Amino acid sequence: MESKTKTILITGAEGTVGAVLRRGFAINYRLIALTRTPQPFESRVADITDLDALVTEFHGVDAVIHLAAASALNAPWDAVLDNNIVGTRNVFEAARLAKVPAVIFASSGHVLGMVEEEAGNALYALENKREFDHTTPPRPDSLYAVSKVFGEAMGRYYSDVFPLRVICVRLGTILPDDDPRSASPGQGRSASLPLEERYPRIRAKWLSQRDCCELFRCCVEADHVRWAVVFGTSDNPRQPWSLAKARQVLGYTPVDAAPVSPTVTHR
Amino acid sequence: MESKTKTILITGAEGTVGAVLRRGFAINYRLIALTRTPQPFESRVADITDLDALVTEFHGVDAVIHLAAASALNAPWDAVLDNNIVGTRNVFEAARLAKVPAVIFASSGHVLGMVEEEAGNALYALENKREFDHTTPPRPDSLYAVSKVFGEAMGRYYSDVFPLRVICVRLGTILPDDDPRSASPGQGRSASLPLEERYPRIRAKWLSQRDCCELFRCCVEADHVRWAVVFGTSDNPRQPWSLAKARQVLGYTPVDAAPVSPTVTHR
Repeated sequence: MESKTKTILITGAEGTVGAVLRRGFAINYRLIALTRTPQPFESRVADITDLDALVTEFHGVDAVIHLAAASALNAPWDAVLDNNIVGTRNVFEAARLAKVPAVIFASSGHVLGMVEEEAGNALYALENKREFDHTTPPRPDSLYAVSKVFGEAMGRYYSDVFPLRVICVRLGTILPDDDPRSASPGQGRSASLPLEERYPRIRAKWLSQRDCCELFRCCVEADHVRWAVVFGTSDNPRQPWSLAKARQVLGYTPVDAAPVSPTVTHR
Repeated sequence: MESKTKTILITGAEGTVGAVLRRGFAINYRLIALTRTPQPFESRVADITDLDALVTEFHGVDAVIHLAAASALNAPWDAVLDNNIVGTRNVFEAARLAKVPAVIFASSGHVLGMVEEEAGNALYALENKREFDHTTPPRPDSLYAVSKVFGEAMGRYYSDVFPLRVICVRLGTILPDDDPRSASPGQGRSASLPLEERYPRIRAKWLSQRDCCELFRCCVEADHVRWAVVFGTSDNPRQPWSLAKARQVLGYTPVDAAPVSPTVTHR
């Protein structure tokens, strides 16, 4: 068994992805959970709008996984500005000041959300071969998604100008019960549709909890990668986002796949 | 002679580009100059951090040309945040609220600044055929440039989701005396070099004042264009940025070109 050689700090550790990583990372890493408010689990409390507090917490950390954000698709501008713009800049700046070697930034597939809106449900059909990757020009579908484009650009700047390696993971859908067939309707265009019609889209974006942990583990361990933007989904039957770069650059090997249909129980 | 059928509001009308457009646009358009402080010329005073003030000024306007920004490459984060992030979002939001049909956003070639840094001066050599365009992934060289990536993403979002057409112009170098051979060293990597060595880079990015006016005129008149990102330079002997999209989509036809060498007087 590996010794816990790296100290990983997770911002927004109280969220859905934070809970997944707290469980999945506890064996291999020394974990620091950063949260905005006190939690039932052990955490350090700091608001990411407070640069000085972040610098204090970041000292001695090997990698920051930055999950904290106003994450609702309909989050109002003020919340996006404080948490996702100011907060994300603070995370990169604090990492620089505290000499943290790496920041893993939780971006989102919603940076291409309008590409999906325009393509419609045909995009998720099993025979559709179209794939989008990190070179597809962004088309954010929300202020939230605009803020993720900003975060990626800020990360690119910090990785280019300072000794900081940055990996941006455009996350798909991580579910608390880990079952794509039980996904709640969410807030999007398809929220009013029955599961059978919503499912192809959910399937396309599903990221299982163990694949999520594996992907972030790959990011933490990729000491040779100075900069990358990758997509984060499981190896689903039909997905519009390419996993090629995550596989090639990070060695990410997803082991899960969403079932083709919501009525299939095996996966 | 055309009648002045369109009302154009210019933010940051007190700057270098603003002065060029105030002169060049006065014949064909009803101009409203918006400035942060009172000026020797007729202007309306409003700070772009004040959304309500912008909405008031934007009523009845046919197009907003958004130039106002903290434009120094070394502008500190607080200035970038207030003027370029909050201010630019306010301009798009005020345009939506006041039902302005179009926003022309002054972006910058610095969104690809680190691509240039990496390529070095060979990029500007007359035999170098490499061209970057709107599909080249951004590599901002400054917080200023990060904010321009943000502004483009915000513009993309507004153009996709609301009835607003948005054109982003990645401006080159507009000079007060309009002569690329007299350009001051600026703030970049090449500031300490003699003119002969700096010149290829200046030449590559030069945008003459009349080409600048023509490009913005094309943007204002392009009622068929819902969204575009274009580069803004004159037809210089060697430039790394493609003008193809500006020519094709907007009908931009530059008439000026920087001389090949700073010792050539004819252009």
